[in-house]
Amino acid sequence: MDSGWYTVDLNCDMGESYGAYQIGNDEAIFPYITSANIACGFHAGDPAVMKKTVRLALKHNVAIGAHPGLPDLQGFGRREMSIIAEEAYDMVMYQIGALNGFVQSEGGILHHVKPHGALYNMAATHKNLAEAIAEAVYKVNPQLVLYGLSGSELILAGRNIGLQVANEVFADRTYQDNGTLTSRRAANALITDEDMAVAQSLRMVKEGIVTAVSGTDVAIQANTICLHGDGVHAASFAAKIHNLFKEKNINLQAP
Amino acid sequence: MDSGWYTVDLNCDMGESYGAYQIGNDEAIFPYITSANIACGFHAGDPAVMKKTVRLALKHNVAIGAHPGLPDLQGFGRREMSIIAEEAYDMVMYQIGALNGFVQSEGGILHHVKPHGALYNMAATHKNLAEAIAEAVYKVNPQLVLYGLSGSELILAGRNIGLQVANEVFADRTYQDNGTLTSRRAANALITDEDMAVAQSLRMVKEGIVTAVSGTDVAIQANTICLHGDGVHAASFAAKIHNLFKEKNINLQAP
Amino acid sequence: MDSGWYTVDLNCDMGESYGAYQIGNDEAIFPYITSANIACGFHAGDPAVMKKTVRLALKHNVAIGAHPGLPDLQGFGRREMSIIAEEAYDMVMYQIGALNGFVQSEGGILHHVKPHGALYNMAATHKNLAEAIAEAVYKVNPQLVLYGLSGSELILAGRNIGLQVANEVFADRTYQDNGTLTSRRAANALITDEDMAVAQSLRMVKEGIVTAVSGTDVAIQANTICLHGDGVHAASFAAKIHNLFKEKNINLQAP
Amino acid sequence: MDSGWYTVDLNCDMGESYGAYQIGNDEAIFPYITSANIACGFHAGDPAVMKKTVRLALKHNVAIGAHPGLPDLQGFGRREMSIIAEEAYDMVMYQIGALNGFVQSEGGILHHVKPHGALYNMAATHKNLAEAIAEAVYKVNPQLVLYGLSGSELILAGRNIGLQVANEVFADRTYQDNGTLTSRRAANALITDEDMAVAQSLRMVKEGIVTAVSGTDVAIQANTICLHGDGVHAASFAAKIHNLFKEKNINLQAP
Repeated sequence: MDSGWYTVDLNCDMGESYGAYQIGNDEAIFPYITSANIACGFHAGDPAVMKKTVRLALKHNVAIGAHPGLPDLQGFGRREMSIIAEEAYDMVMYQIGALNGFVQSEGGILHHVKPHGALYNMAATHKNLAEAIAEAVYKVNPQLVLYGLSGSELILAGRNIGLQVANEVFADRTYQDNGTLTSRRAANALITDEDMAVAQSLRMVKEGIVTAVSGTDVAIQANTICLHGDGVHAASFAAKIHNLFKEKNINLQAP
Repeated sequence: MDSGWYTVDLNCDMGESYGAYQIGNDEAIFPYITSANIACGFHAGDPAVMKKTVRLALKHNVAIGAHPGLPDLQGFGRREMSIIAEEAYDMVMYQIGALNGFVQSEGGILHHVKPHGALYNMAATHKNLAEAIAEAVYKVNPQLVLYGLSGSELILAGRNIGLQVANEVFADRTYQDNGTLTSRRAANALITDEDMAVAQSLRMVKEGIVTAVSGTDVAIQANTICLHGDGVHAASFAAKIHNLFKEKNINLQAP
Repeated sequence: MDSGWYTVDLNCDMGESYGAYQIGNDEAIFPYITSANIACGFHAGDPAVMKKTVRLALKHNVAIGAHPGLPDLQGFGRREMSIIAEEAYDMVMYQIGALNGFVQSEGGILHHVKPHGALYNMAATHKNLAEAIAEAVYKVNPQLVLYGLSGSELILAGRNIGLQVANEVFADRTYQDNGTLTSRRAANALITDEDMAVAQSLRMVKEGIVTAVSGTDVAIQANTICLHGDGVHAASFAAKIHNLFKEKNINLQAP
Repeated sequence: MDSGWYTVDLNCDMGESYGAYQIGNDEAIFPYITSANIACGFHAGDPAVMKKTVRLALKHNVAIGAHPGLPDLQGFGRREMSIIAEEAYDMVMYQIGALNGFVQSEGGILHHVKPHGALYNMAATHKNLAEAIAEAVYKVNPQLVLYGLSGSELILAGRNIGLQVANEVFADRTYQDNGTLTSRRAANALITDEDMAVAQSLRMVKEGIVTAVSGTDVAIQANTICLHGDGVHAASFAAKIHNLFKEKNINLQAP
């Protein structure tokens, strides 16, 4: 039998608009997720957007996370920069603090931190950056949950310093035999069929297994599933996965 | 008799360097001040500078304040911008939060907030901006002290919302009959004679009076005196005013 | 009779996207305009967007103008800043040059300059800023056409220094008795009825008259009409005014 | 015999101040150099600094070059970013154009382009970035001289597209057996003895040889020598190398 034994978090990057520029469809997606990663002004977001997004998260009872990125608004934080560990610590500390001001002043509690884009990718494989980020999170508040790529250096660093961690998987990305994501440059990086994406997600949550592009089954830990907030079908896909998981008695909640 | 009945704070703007760019002589001035206003990355300062400056303040046992400014690094936050009250609230909230991350993670406590440059000047005269800034400070933490131009709208707004306020005066600026500063554009805006600057400061603290450029004596409240951190003689002047006040049994401490 | 005696330019602000952020619907609007004002990276636009927009303009045989703005991406260049004349000169020179690199390297010729947003508004009324901007334009190339609010200080400054000028009017904005635009804060600032907007434009071009909100007829010079590039109906409105003017034998071309 | 058969350029990075922030000692160094690389606002410099530096260069009859960098003011353009070739093209085009506005409006002629910091280093080894930068320079004006690390991919790319190139060597940096610079992370990266730095420079110019840290003599082409503009002894070292080269009848002039 299979009734509510499984729990997973549905997270989405939110608050990525900036000034006159709109990205994403936050209001349509909030009803279907359990945690939100809110941009902090470096790669996206500005103070007004941050406040508004924090308020939306609180209204929808969604766990609030800081989503710090590289200082590269033009590149949306997606271009790797050769930063040293201390720079990673500093920029993460700054951005968590900035978001935390809005969270606390609105009566909320900051729940987690998930690095963005290139910072997320570098932290997945660079031990020293991973440790610096984990330390910054820990020093702000050891109760914060650190989100990172499932099985990555960031997860390891978080565990080592004493943080609760959340292994993140992706509904619509394909995987390699070693459990890493297929590079976005590869033709088969994305799963465009929604049903396949949902099925992959379900299996990762219930069985801890994903089928790599090679056909091999690979073990993977799935504490939180990343949904994408942009794209025409973002909200309908969020609704679909949310509803199907509910049907399957999978408990949706933030870690 | 005159032994320690008077108390005043000596504050200085700190942490105004940025990346490869150095401004000020923070290490030389910290020994002589009782509170530091630390730039938060908008008009000056960056995450690395903020962390370093917070550590210096803690080492010297100097009260730490956030020094939020307009988003204008090129103009050093000195060019007025036609922002609305909500924008002032948002940018102040963001910057206080960002600094607070460093303060708390280093084991300190944020003590006060003092707006910078054009934001300070606008808050002195624009009631709606003053109220928005006071509200942001209050919502972060009602125990914070709000520093503003002595007798200004910002002081009034801070008091009205329930914050402790600190009326700020300037050692080396001249005053008008209505208690406002002489515009920097005027030839007689600055007091370049150090002894006169010290004497003016002393009289503001002990008698609550300043002699305006017209020769008239004007009532002024002086809870904190602003020292300037740049300039060749900044550190020696800080030492001079610090030592003279000590001699005169004026108690130097943050509000 | 009335066949082709009238000539007017239809201009539109273009290239206002930035990095991952999209604004406007440039490709849909280019077919209907005769000149494009391309953002230069301060209030909007980035090098990639600028290159792409220059190429689109050349493809559509549309006259290319630089559209310099205040250094305020977050505020989209719409917040006035208290800059001095020399700062206006410098920022306009920088931005014209930056765009000119793309124009020349793509085989085009820069045709005009039109300040953006708050810089446009300040230049309309502040003589010293207007003169500084006109001087920057003139020094880059005295053959450039300077676009400014019809009858404004900027137009006057351009003429005085020896530039060809283009008096700009707005299809969808209402006017005051003194020929200035109704403030956007007023309820009746915008003309939302497309037929009325077209009719107002037509009359400004053919009769040199606009009916102010008071009902009074006011003289106004109309060398170029500003169309807005964002909004759901931007492209269809551009098509409508373009086609109607063609029907009425009004010659559409850049000055 | 040895009278004026040798010619070399002495170049220095200039105009690296920003807003209230000062770096370098431009006025003291200009008398001793033959070409200046002027920062263009991305990694350093702002419109006011650019104009002022262009004027200084013209006054001292020094050849003017654009010094484009990565969009990373906080990191002073020294942190590598994973940009693609088209992004390199775009950012170089933008920055050359921006500087060119000031050069032309002051009656000067842009002479060369030298990428800055991490962009310079990446262009030395990444063929695709080197080609993109060379193409941008060529498209602005095929008469421009491209400065790059002696013998690097950038030099090759410049030659291939038809640009005149200048092989750059460093007076105060040590070299490896393959003709590349010793990494700044190595203890022996810098030559701190001024006489040794001058001697190394002289030999590179006259003999086309440098002694690598291993003791091996290595062939190296030296069309231009990079002097550093910051540091306490920058100006006196510039004077020393300038005067010694003059004594040795080495012709100092821009390529």
